[in-house]
Amino acid sequence: REYRGAPTGTDIECRGWRQEAALRLLNNNLDPEVAENPEELVVYGGTGRAARSWDAYDAILAELRDLGDAETLLVQSGKPVGRFETHERAPRVLVANSNLVGKWDDWDHFHELEARGLIMYGQMTAGSWAYIGTQGIIQGTFETLAELARQEFEENSLEGRVVATGGLGGMGGAQPLAVTMNHGVCIAAEVDEDRIDRRIETGYLMDKTSDLEVALQQAAEYADRGEPYSVGVHMNAADMLAELVDRNEIPDVVTDQTSAHDELEGYYPSGYTVAAADARREADPETYVAESLDTMERHVQAILDLQERGAVAFEYGNNIRGQVREHRGMETAFDFPGFVPAYVRPLFCRGKGPFRWVALSGDPDDIRRTDEAVTELFPEKDALHRWIDLAQEQVEFQGLPSRVCWLGYRAADDPDGLTERARFALRINDLVADGEIAAPIVVTRDHLDAGSVASPNRETEAMKDGSDAIADWPILNALLNCAAGADVVSVHDGGGVGIGNALHTNNHVVLDGSDLAAEKARRVFTTDPGMGVVRHADAGYETALDEAEASGVPIPMRERER
Amino acid sequence: REYRGAPTGTDIECRGWRQEAALRLLNNNLDPEVAENPEELVVYGGTGRAARSWDAYDAILAELRDLGDAETLLVQSGKPVGRFETHERAPRVLVANSNLVGKWDDWDHFHELEARGLIMYGQMTAGSWAYIGTQGIIQGTFETLAELARQEFEENSLEGRVVATGGLGGMGGAQPLAVTMNHGVCIAAEVDEDRIDRRIETGYLMDKTSDLEVALQQAAEYADRGEPYSVGVHMNAADMLAELVDRNEIPDVVTDQTSAHDELEGYYPSGYTVAAADARREADPETYVAESLDTMERHVQAILDLQERGAVAFEYGNNIRGQVREHRGMETAFDFPGFVPAYVRPLFCRGKGPFRWVALSGDPDDIRRTDEAVTELFPEKDALHRWIDLAQEQVEFQGLPSRVCWLGYRAADDPDGLTERARFALRINDLVADGEIAAPIVVTRDHLDAGSVASPNRETEAMKDGSDAIADWPILNALLNCAAGADVVSVHDGGGVGIGNALHTNNHVVLDGSDLAAEKARRVFTTDPGMGVVRHADAGYETALDEAEASGVPIPMRERER
Ligand SMILES: NC(=O)c1ccc[n+]([C@@H]2O[C@H](COP(=O)([O-])OP(=O)(O)OC[C@H]3O[C@@H](n4cnc5c(N)ncnc54)[C@H](O)[C@@H]3O)[C@@H](O)[C@H]2O)c1
Ligand SMILES: NC(=O)c1ccc[n+]([C@@H]2O[C@H](COP(=O)([O-])OP(=O)(O)OC[C@H]3O[C@@H](n4cnc5c(N)ncnc54)[C@H](O)[C@@H]3O)[C@@H](O)[C@H]2O)c1
Repeated sequence: REYRGAPTGTDIECRGWRQEAALRLLNNNLDPEVAENPEELVVYGGTGRAARSWDAYDAILAELRDLGDAETLLVQSGKPVGRFETHERAPRVLVANSNLVGKWDDWDHFHELEARGLIMYGQMTAGSWAYIGTQGIIQGTFETLAELARQEFEENSLEGRVVATGGLGGMGGAQPLAVTMNHGVCIAAEVDEDRIDRRIETGYLMDKTSDLEVALQQAAEYADRGEPYSVGVHMNAADMLAELVDRNEIPDVVTDQTSAHDELEGYYPSGYTVAAADARREADPETYVAESLDTMERHVQAILDLQERGAVAFEYGNNIRGQVREHRGMETAFDFPGFVPAYVRPLFCRGKGPFRWVALSGDPDDIRRTDEAVTELFPEKDALHRWIDLAQEQVEFQGLPSRVCWLGYRAADDPDGLTERARFALRINDLVADGEIAAPIVVTRDHLDAGSVASPNRETEAMKDGSDAIADWPILNALLNCAAGADVVSVHDGGGVGIGNALHTNNHVVLDGSDLAAEKARRVFTTDPGMGVVRHADAGYETALDEAEASGVPIPMRERER
Repeated sequence: REYRGAPTGTDIECRGWRQEAALRLLNNNLDPEVAENPEELVVYGGTGRAARSWDAYDAILAELRDLGDAETLLVQSGKPVGRFETHERAPRVLVANSNLVGKWDDWDHFHELEARGLIMYGQMTAGSWAYIGTQGIIQGTFETLAELARQEFEENSLEGRVVATGGLGGMGGAQPLAVTMNHGVCIAAEVDEDRIDRRIETGYLMDKTSDLEVALQQAAEYADRGEPYSVGVHMNAADMLAELVDRNEIPDVVTDQTSAHDELEGYYPSGYTVAAADARREADPETYVAESLDTMERHVQAILDLQERGAVAFEYGNNIRGQVREHRGMETAFDFPGFVPAYVRPLFCRGKGPFRWVALSGDPDDIRRTDEAVTELFPEKDALHRWIDLAQEQVEFQGLPSRVCWLGYRAADDPDGLTERARFALRINDLVADGEIAAPIVVTRDHLDAGSVASPNRETEAMKDGSDAIADWPILNALLNCAAGADVVSVHDGGGVGIGNALHTNNHVVLDGSDLAAEKARRVFTTDPGMGVVRHADAGYETALDEAEASGVPIPMRERER
């Protein structure tokens, strides 16, 4: 099977740029530079796929090429299933991936249906065609670690600190670079040597070894000198952390990004090479799962032990705590917090989240132009400027050039009452209209955003009012994105924390320089982050209620919330 | 608390008819003539509510009165939570009720969250403001029993046949009338005497007794004479059926519509009066639930025994089989079929489902005019004509005058390629425009419709390809309704089969005589039933593939389906 990534340039195969954008982003998700395993249509995060099968992929492309400007294509778990006439202001593509009725909403049923070819795991941005490679997560990881440093260390930096983690996959691969960008030292366990090599090739990781002793020595030396350093350790993450406990080598920070959300296809049990594990998984999946969960139990115990001895510990969104609590009855698992309540929720309350954009031209200059625009537009945002500088220096583009940064609401700061996201999107749209950018830019985001997700073990862990598991919110968010005119709207079950553990949404808005694009952008980038403000205001967060007041977000029963 | 049902007439409180329609339908749901327990905001079906609390109700009304023609109100489990600017073609109200993330999607979590005031049970048309009293279900029940008669009895009628059932609540109360409309005899057990009286008052039921002996004698006499008859038996349904088994009195048909989907607040265990059961529920809910499930087990066993001895048995959508299989391990429960695969799915494959419309004027003449219109428009549909005649004679309006009938796709039959639903909606819109109808008509439907629901124990039981539990479909349906411009779009978990057992959607389209209404109607009544065709075509039903071909519904991978 041949696949080459997204078409680029200013000529289009489809009947309009909105359809073309969907086609390019789907192909970009499968670009060998971007996807972890494009032969299998796997983009990242265990088995997160962009399409259900190559047949389905071909059919999606054919539909997109043929789709009119007032038509809407329906994609059910990576397969095109219908097409209807709607209107210009409606989305061009509607996507629902991996969703199951509650009682059947678990991996067993999912795998049964997957085996019959009826469903696909969409992860977050895999099945919604919004993955932009490791870059997508890197700024989030950078921001999270920066916030951690602010909260935990006097220096407000990771300088001289050692972070121990595991997993150098599609998302986890961002960890070493985010640590070094924060001037720290990172030791990351990874069982798959190819992944380690890949991170080194792309500049995300500096060094590798299979000798933990060596890694620790190097780490200590760099940390002492206050210099950034990262090393991939070719071993199982659970074994590495257990050894740190045994040697009483306590890192400053401990976390993990192995694909623990999926005990069968994501996580590797201890005692196997990758090849041996893959064979065992094929031959005897039940034993594999049991051993996988045993390893996770030791893994979590090691994190708890390191925390006990002084390390700052947090879960990095892979549901490893939920897995061992559910399958091993380990209640202490939740004694270390998730990264969202610890470091991200305050941003969500203000509608701030990961805004990302992709240059459909394929031309890196287009992103450079947007980099300039965002820094011009927000001259007061020091962290943003620092991020853009670092990203330009250190982040290599994978597939279509793209950028990510966290933008918020703060409509209050704008004379026209525009949100930060809307203001920037309109600016890009003008640049496209003026020909300063070669082809349209498509704006999208992570499913992990302020108002787009219900995920009790991650994004909505420990909500103030206890509303963690209520899924009305992401459903309203998807409907509202549709009402506001996003060009692609998706709803996924599972994602980073596994089937039945989360519901979340995505959107795309194509900025082609037209008035219609401006209209859509103004609305979507008000309503979508606005849902973050509304959702957290409803849960009683003061920051969200303040933001709503300052930015004029109507909260119908707000007097009753305080 | 005062509540008086919907405002009527041609003057409006809101800024437009779309908002006014939502306001009237919400109030209509709470009309004492319509709702089972309006003081508690309970509309029907156990605890299916129209709003979360009276405060939330007031706030919804205030928001609707103030809502602009390009604004969208968000309702989360019966509470207004936000309002955003969208556009005219977008919905005015978006609703998500009772939705929980999969792993938490059960009654325990639901009740916990309900107790904290964070969620509400929306049932199907309760929380989506589309309930029209027992009339709403009666035509479905009529159609189902007519289809049953066609399949099971040579006479194609229930004449001389006895149907034994239970439950005379909001929906179940339609059973006796639907049986007598099909010329049969109905014996219905009901523990709540008030409910029996209410069905007699409204003309749905003829007689009552608390002596089963008497009921059986009467039934036999009427059946012998081939005359229609119905009697409410004031006793527990499980006890009644068990006694029929003991006496070897085998009815021709056996089914049930007690609220068995909710073992705590819907179903009554044997051995209690209503008052005693209510007290026990309060004092000791755990015992209540255990006894409730014990009774259900005997109930299902009696149905199986009657089936064994020759009765035609089917489950009528209250999940009583699922309850005893899940909580009592009774695997034989599914030895009798659900009514959907048995009698309804062939209609769904053709996009046919329960289309209903409500006269916002409050004037019964408006419905009479639409009755004429629908019979004029479909002169060849005998069953439809028979239904309209019977309905005019025997169905008393409750609250706002309304009508329901099953309309399908069959765009192939229309010169303009319009579906039946679209054709009729456009006709109504013209009548409103011409002033032949006093005020706008709002068209809505049951959540049980061709393409709107995933419910493995009911609507999607035993799908041909095994895709029963895939919830991508209702999510796509809701998004598409939104894209097509329905005025209200809702997504609910639970409904008739209980939390975690189903996901389903609803829509409203307001026909105010305008071009915009015509545009919306044409689109929504193509896409919404079209999803039924698409969903069943994807599952491999020939009827659906034929309908798609005949009516020009694009099925992207259709060659691959056959
Ligand atoms: N910030 C977030 O919320 C967030 C974002 C992205 C991903 N995640 C979660 O983080 C996890 C990783 O995501 P990804 O996209 O990198 O997944 P991935 O599947 O691409 O990579 C996982 C990596 O972990 C390695 N691995 C698995 N088990 C291991 C073990 N026991 N020891 C050492 N290495 C092991 C694999 O070889 C692989 O390289 C997922 O669970 C994902 O859902 C969270
Ligand atoms: N066609 C369908 O698919 C469909 C449509 C509507 C309702 N339903 C299901 O049917 C059931 C009834 O709906 P409803 O709106 O009438 O509910 P409801 O709560 O208004 O009425 C239920 C009635 O059953 C009675 N009852 C409960 N337990 C009993 C028992 N053991 N014996 C005798 N009577 C008992 C109650 O007193 C009440 O009158 C629900 O489970 C509902 O979800 C199915």
